[in-house]
Amino acid sequence: MSDIRLVGFDGDDTLWRSEDYYRSAEKRYEEIVGRYIDLHDAGTLRHLLEVERRNLKVFGYGAKGMVLSMIEAAIELTDGRIAARDLHQVIEIGRETLQHPVELIDGIREAVAAIAADWPVVLITKGDLFHQEQKIAASGLADLFPRIEIVSEKDPPTYARVLAEFGIDATQFVMVGNSLRSDIEPVVRLGGWGVHMPYPLTWAHEAEHGLAQAHPRVLTVEQAAQLPGAVRRIVEQVRNSA
Amino acid sequence: MSDIRLVGFDGDDTLWRSEDYYRSAEKRYEEIVGRYIDLHDAGTLRHLLEVERRNLKVFGYGAKGMVLSMIEAAIELTDGRIAARDLHQVIEIGRETLQHPVELIDGIREAVAAIAADWPVVLITKGDLFHQEQKIAASGLADLFPRIEIVSEKDPPTYARVLAEFGIDATQFVMVGNSLRSDIEPVVRLGGWGVHMPYPLTWAHEAEHGLAQAHPRVLTVEQAAQLPGAVRRIVEQVRNSA
Repeated sequence: MSDIRLVGFDGDDTLWRSEDYYRSAEKRYEEIVGRYIDLHDAGTLRHLLEVERRNLKVFGYGAKGMVLSMIEAAIELTDGRIAARDLHQVIEIGRETLQHPVELIDGIREAVAAIAADWPVVLITKGDLFHQEQKIAASGLADLFPRIEIVSEKDPPTYARVLAEFGIDATQFVMVGNSLRSDIEPVVRLGGWGVHMPYPLTWAHEAEHGLAQAHPRVLTVEQAAQLPGAVRRIVEQVRNSA
Repeated sequence: MSDIRLVGFDGDDTLWRSEDYYRSAEKRYEEIVGRYIDLHDAGTLRHLLEVERRNLKVFGYGAKGMVLSMIEAAIELTDGRIAARDLHQVIEIGRETLQHPVELIDGIREAVAAIAADWPVVLITKGDLFHQEQKIAASGLADLFPRIEIVSEKDPPTYARVLAEFGIDATQFVMVGNSLRSDIEPVVRLGGWGVHMPYPLTWAHEAEHGLAQAHPRVLTVEQAAQLPGAVRRIVEQVRNSA
């Protein structure tokens, strides 16, 4: 049957602010490393990104992996000169990132509630299991999501597995999220639909994607209040093409 | 209906060896810290356990949290004197722990297969999402488990949620695992059944539990080959008491 049967929502920077905290973590990391090296010459954050990407295969996504990469990167950049006390401050950055307040994106509760009134919804989020669970609990949105999937990577095989568990075809699925790389591209590749709601900040790793600027199965909205309308437009498009 | 309808298996130290790698990680941590302090006076591993438990609420379980706690504990114990290069070696301990080979417990594949032939089975494991997924893939046991639940804590609410998703009552559930604290006690508290298969090594944190030595709904086995028999005995007991 050709109809939308499930709407997925990303968590970080779609339901609640996240990247702001990672940016301020990076700023504090730069301050600490700046006690040892000239930040202007060092490409400090580009180097950190390299270390993080190299470590993704072992550490996975999330704040704990970020901190381990920060410690490793700081030791590399300072040629081992960084003091243990300063490395302890890097751990504190991680502790604070893992405990940041959960602030909802403007209007998102109403938007999810409106969509959930008409279609089954699922939260599909990636990162540290423990941290994501805590954010879901603190967000006050758990009541809107009967199903929550915390995954270690958002790629086509992962979405295919989740959709198989729901027993639906990708063509019957809409994913809502801020990341073209993680939320939109893999779903579109499977034949599904995407609603892209960009967030003002994007991690460099997430900014890379292989999606054409305008894809016929992707809508873009500027704010949460436009999400129910975007999902309805997709539903109508699917029905008309049936 | 009074019958066993689901058998759960723990992962670490039930399906595959794990604690051995954490023990050898602790040994390497002691060696590194021992370059700065007298290990005989320091209670190094007791101190590490304190730091780990204090951090559990923020870092959760798993090797990444262990490494962050090790770094913090080493800085504390050495009063900040530890060199960055030595802290980098602590990160290497974590990287190796996260990539340790996955060695199955003797006879476990046959035991799980025998049980799965008669009852639905589920793998319920805790720790770093990414690391657990990698171990499941490397174990070659994924084909035996149609459902896998990776959870952040193994307490009664978590088991209750998993059982609710399966639509079964705790009295219809048997959990197989090495940890009385995480695998057996919470399930028994909910009214379910446990098959305890002790592992030669137990993390101090897991060794604490509030279960009486002999509980009428807990069987103990010494090796994997005894698991199918233990599950059958529970099934018969449940049928006879119906």
